[in-house]
Amino acid sequence: MISLSKKYSAYICRMNYTRNNLEDTICALATPMGIGAIGVIRISGPNAISIVSNCFKGKNLNEVATHTLHLGKMMDEKEIIDEVLAAVFIAPKSYTGDHTIELSGHGSPYILQRILELLVKNGCRMAQPGEFTLRAFLNKKLDLSQAEAVADLIASSSSESHRTAINQMRGGFSKQILDLKERLVNFSSLIELELDFSEEDVEFASRPELKNLVSNIVEIITLLLDSFKYGNAIKNGIPTVIAGKPNAGKSTLLNALIKDDRAIVSDIAGTTRDVIEESFVIKGVSFRLIDTAGIRKDSVDVIENIGIEKTFERIQKASIIMYMFDASTTDENSLQEELAQFDGINAVIVPVANKTDLPEAKNRTYHDELSVIPISCKTSTGLELLEERLVEIIEKDKVKNDIIITNLRHYEALNNARESLKSVLESMVTGRSGELLAFDIRKGIFHLGEITGDISTDDLLANIFSKFCIGK
Amino acid sequence: MISLSKKYSAYICRMNYTRNNLEDTICALATPMGIGAIGVIRISGPNAISIVSNCFKGKNLNEVATHTLHLGKMMDEKEIIDEVLAAVFIAPKSYTGDHTIELSGHGSPYILQRILELLVKNGCRMAQPGEFTLRAFLNKKLDLSQAEAVADLIASSSSESHRTAINQMRGGFSKQILDLKERLVNFSSLIELELDFSEEDVEFASRPELKNLVSNIVEIITLLLDSFKYGNAIKNGIPTVIAGKPNAGKSTLLNALIKDDRAIVSDIAGTTRDVIEESFVIKGVSFRLIDTAGIRKDSVDVIENIGIEKTFERIQKASIIMYMFDASTTDENSLQEELAQFDGINAVIVPVANKTDLPEAKNRTYHDELSVIPISCKTSTGLELLEERLVEIIEKDKVKNDIIITNLRHYEALNNARESLKSVLESMVTGRSGELLAFDIRKGIFHLGEITGDISTDDLLANIFSKFCIGK
Repeated sequence: MISLSKKYSAYICRMNYTRNNLEDTICALATPMGIGAIGVIRISGPNAISIVSNCFKGKNLNEVATHTLHLGKMMDEKEIIDEVLAAVFIAPKSYTGDHTIELSGHGSPYILQRILELLVKNGCRMAQPGEFTLRAFLNKKLDLSQAEAVADLIASSSSESHRTAINQMRGGFSKQILDLKERLVNFSSLIELELDFSEEDVEFASRPELKNLVSNIVEIITLLLDSFKYGNAIKNGIPTVIAGKPNAGKSTLLNALIKDDRAIVSDIAGTTRDVIEESFVIKGVSFRLIDTAGIRKDSVDVIENIGIEKTFERIQKASIIMYMFDASTTDENSLQEELAQFDGINAVIVPVANKTDLPEAKNRTYHDELSVIPISCKTSTGLELLEERLVEIIEKDKVKNDIIITNLRHYEALNNARESLKSVLESMVTGRSGELLAFDIRKGIFHLGEITGDISTDDLLANIFSKFCIGK
Repeated sequence: MISLSKKYSAYICRMNYTRNNLEDTICALATPMGIGAIGVIRISGPNAISIVSNCFKGKNLNEVATHTLHLGKMMDEKEIIDEVLAAVFIAPKSYTGDHTIELSGHGSPYILQRILELLVKNGCRMAQPGEFTLRAFLNKKLDLSQAEAVADLIASSSSESHRTAINQMRGGFSKQILDLKERLVNFSSLIELELDFSEEDVEFASRPELKNLVSNIVEIITLLLDSFKYGNAIKNGIPTVIAGKPNAGKSTLLNALIKDDRAIVSDIAGTTRDVIEESFVIKGVSFRLIDTAGIRKDSVDVIENIGIEKTFERIQKASIIMYMFDASTTDENSLQEELAQFDGINAVIVPVANKTDLPEAKNRTYHDELSVIPISCKTSTGLELLEERLVEIIEKDKVKNDIIITNLRHYEALNNARESLKSVLESMVTGRSGELLAFDIRKGIFHLGEITGDISTDDLLANIFSKFCIGK
């Protein structure tokens, strides 16, 4: 009998994504396109050093030590293409784990193109996006979640997204996953041993201990899953809608927060129709600020009504809704009524009282429970308080775990792992067979392995690395 | 008595452009802005190594050998900003001649900005455009004409402009200038010696020899000056106007040559009004192709008439005029008449007979002297012949000298040097005083020295280096 668990374990191997191509020596421009002081071309593969030294006039690069720099000329036959600096990395002491050379030349797109052509003529192949990092992964210089963090790091644009990417790249998350996996693997082998002796009805794996372990892992995974809301938000920016009646000052607030004249502002109700979206960063957290059409029911303007529809679409997807109202005309009761329209919406509502500089607003008070933030866009008062409140909301989600999930793929793998482990716990309660237990544990291990790339398919790798820069 | 020549020689010293700032350690992003696989930050100055090692966690960079690479982390106190590779160059073995470090980090503008801020916090100053190359000049790693060639090299976009820039950077031109200068200096000292013994009426410097030498130098300078026409053209692209009557097919030719639908083409005479300019490269030579409004005298269209005016402006500045006409309707006589309008224009005229595919054009012949190029834009015939003709015209200007002047500043300095030397020759004929002779020779030396930067002023240096990239 082939046990289910053994069938499943067949997946647990590193697949052969572009294995065939690992013998190629690849090259690419590693710095952004455009004119600059210098441009860097990266070459990696078994023949990196010999190919470059073929067209490099200077020291014999085949004979130099690793991690050394050499000035020389790139020669196309007798023509000098450029004076370059060659940085030599001898395998396995390189980013990819293969022989690697980085040529730093003059930052002329024309010259850099000529050098790339020269390298291709001498036996290099132009690299695919992310192919250098893919090789680093295949050569086990980093695992899959670390490789993904490299792309996140390059894309990071706020201190929080930067911090989580660098932590992930340095392996904090991978270590936690590996630790969980190892503990499961130990148990799993004991249970599989039981299966081999299935006719003798022995129990090598203590069931109470297993239950304890699995419950504990489920807890940790739940913490990680919970961090995704924050992680995803800081990676992509927190969707924050400014809603309110027409003419409440929503566009003025957007402009004030991003310190730019982005949205057109006028006294005419219904000025904003299209949804306007701008990123801005408070204390290292990136917010996607969304200005919308004012909500009113009596508009006869067709375009404005489309705008109001779009407003509600955005409200559905928001993490935070700043509900802005005119403090000079809105009392406690009408505010409560207006806020009622957000009942059932899964977002934090921040009521913002604008125009507090007007005499009519002076003596207005609202129930403490509503946590209304009083501001005046006109006199720029209260904006700091509002910004603090926004950051506060986000920080609340943060502190439970040092490690933060920012990647949907990791979220899904963890979710699947948790489902399998929950099923393990259930099986133990209902006393299902050891075979099923082993199968679910294997599934849990499998899904955890997906994160670090112990288990990966060609499609998955292609999908991950195709999103990288060329040259990385 | 203070001799004129001694007064002049006071200028012959290197001026103190930003001398005061040479003690600063400067830093800048050396790669183009934008997201890329990597970005490189360059740091140079007396404290480059100590400042970087202050915020670098890895090997102690103060103790490493020159031209070595070190992986480490850039730390802002306890926060990791990035994992970087530090390339260390110990003075004087660096581009600038000072201690230099190049940090290669992840290509995120956010991260690179953070690293620059960190360096500034630790004592660096942000570099001015071209300041690294300026230091290389001040530290005598390259002379002024070589420094200028660095900027030309980065801007080069065709094989010819690339070739002359790389030759100039490698010092071919400087060597020729230095050689001329040296020969003058030798003579000049003999003549100045005569002046010291002026009461005794001796002649240390042989007049026939001097005359020979100066004539020879004037000849060489003339060759160099002549090369400027070609050099300037290949650096900036050769201005090539397509002129002709309305509907001759000028815009179709532009599109055919650049292989793009750049200019709007229609059967209606007067379709093109605005001047259209596009660069294209034939055999490594860059042409600026200029499509113009068709020339006719009877147009009542105001905009078209403005266009025709602009056509004549461009014709005045052109190096080559492709005069395009309809071979199916234009005979030898009318062509001669039409070409007459370019009499007195200082450009090479290339008559281009279009529509040679039409039956009316089949038996048409033109005088050999006119060198008419028969083409058909419709069937794409004759275009190669036309391209060959364009390159031929340019190549003719080229071959007299290996070294080509591409820089207006050099052209002017050479012109001034030639004037002074011509004046030396004149003085010898008219038997003017040794003092005047010495003065003119000094002036010649002075102007030659301007090219390589032996003589330079703050303004000149500021002017040259401000046009560089940041980070170069």
